[in-house]
Amino acid sequence: MQTRFILIQTSHAGNVGAAARAMKTMGFDDLVLVAPRWANVLRRDETIQRASGALDVLEKCRIVDTLDEALDGMTHLCATAMTPRDFGPPTTTPRAHFAQLTQQAEPPGGVAFLFGSERFGMRNEDVYRCHTCLSIPSNPQFGSLNIGAALQVIAYDWRLALGGFADAPPLPVSTARLADAAQVSGMLSHLEQALVALEFLDPTAPKKLMPRLNSLFNRANLTQEEIHILRGIAKSILQLPGAKATSKAVSSEVRDSGHEPSV
Amino acid sequence: MQTRFILIQTSHAGNVGAAARAMKTMGFDDLVLVAPRWANVLRRDETIQRASGALDVLEKCRIVDTLDEALDGMTHLCATAMTPRDFGPPTTTPRAHFAQLTQQAEPPGGVAFLFGSERFGMRNEDVYRCHTCLSIPSNPQFGSLNIGAALQVIAYDWRLALGGFADAPPLPVSTARLADAAQVSGMLSHLEQALVALEFLDPTAPKKLMPRLNSLFNRANLTQEEIHILRGIAKSILQLPGAKATSKAVSSEVRDSGHEPSV
Repeated sequence: MQTRFILIQTSHAGNVGAAARAMKTMGFDDLVLVAPRWANVLRRDETIQRASGALDVLEKCRIVDTLDEALDGMTHLCATAMTPRDFGPPTTTPRAHFAQLTQQAEPPGGVAFLFGSERFGMRNEDVYRCHTCLSIPSNPQFGSLNIGAALQVIAYDWRLALGGFADAPPLPVSTARLADAAQVSGMLSHLEQALVALEFLDPTAPKKLMPRLNSLFNRANLTQEEIHILRGIAKSILQLPGAKATSKAVSSEVRDSGHEPSV
Repeated sequence: MQTRFILIQTSHAGNVGAAARAMKTMGFDDLVLVAPRWANVLRRDETIQRASGALDVLEKCRIVDTLDEALDGMTHLCATAMTPRDFGPPTTTPRAHFAQLTQQAEPPGGVAFLFGSERFGMRNEDVYRCHTCLSIPSNPQFGSLNIGAALQVIAYDWRLALGGFADAPPLPVSTARLADAAQVSGMLSHLEQALVALEFLDPTAPKKLMPRLNSLFNRANLTQEEIHILRGIAKSILQLPGAKATSKAVSSEVRDSGHEPSV
């Protein structure tokens, strides 16, 4: 779906740069400025600085005098306005509207998002032309998003509604194999011996130490590698010269309580 | 759920202001800066300008030397990092992670979102401390969001995951009553007469004009008020001195074809 962002009478050059950057991060590049305050806005230092590398969006950007000129080819116009207008189009949230828009039988060919000036927002007559008025959910006591930030949110939600980035590298999936229950249980027995050898755990009055450790390790979803690490620690403890040589006794104790014997 | 935003070694004062504004628009106010470049960052012109009224967030903001000091009371740490790290926490998208976080049996008491410096992002050791690494879906060729824009997106998604603004005024619901099928049909008959009177429609060879108009008006979900307007137009046409006085003939034609007679 063709997507255009239209900034109407923007006064801060930095916001134009921020808009270009926000668009590019979400894979959009069609920016049109209607009657910006600065005729040379695309070449101003602040614009270029805030665009931070999205220079191709600035190069492709068109500056026009009227909203009419900005709208060629667009079939679905979304106003962004804090305040709903009488006689204006229905007000909706971006996420709800985008879900509806992308799921309808005949999606629009060209979608334009219109942003008014920093100080005055959109003019009524411009809002009236739109098919919907998008309202980003925000703090009732302080709802005014910066124009670049608002554009970032709209572009983000719209990109996700369009299906995200098909050619994006998938999020890395852990290749670590999770330990199974027997491996966790075996590690715990090993650790128990070590704790007894340390005289940290009194096998005649063990209280709830091992169940607590068991619960902790369960929540951690241990990998097999981590099992090896933990057993390595237990083994090192048991090999300490000062460790009490009680491993055998504990081992049978552990067996009695249904644990796997330590290796 | 307590929510904190932590900016680590931020170098641009404007970004601190933008962060404060973005937080406030989403109803958050707990901002901590770890070793910012400017010691007086909270009082710099650019900060105050970009905060644009979120001065209470700046006033409440703490500046600390180390990440440790910033994390008091926080139980769930979310890194924001472009690049997943080996040995780092699992990488996920904000939306998926927030859904999981808010739906779990025991949600965390304090959630912190960590943002690294503009130039270098987060240090590995800081990422390692986190429970998850949030990756905002973005253009594989240009994925670097401005820090304020990234914070706006995270704050927005997190606020929506938390249920939005309970005390926000509901979006205005249209009080206009939709026209029912009979009203649409009656209006179409009226319009048909007018079009015949205009000699725009040849009743002996009507082709598909009326079905097309019918389809168009159906998609528009006309209100009763709009029916009155359209009938008013038809009536005005029929009252034109030059209009062909064929309304009666057409009216029966319309009746034959199953339409409601015009009023």
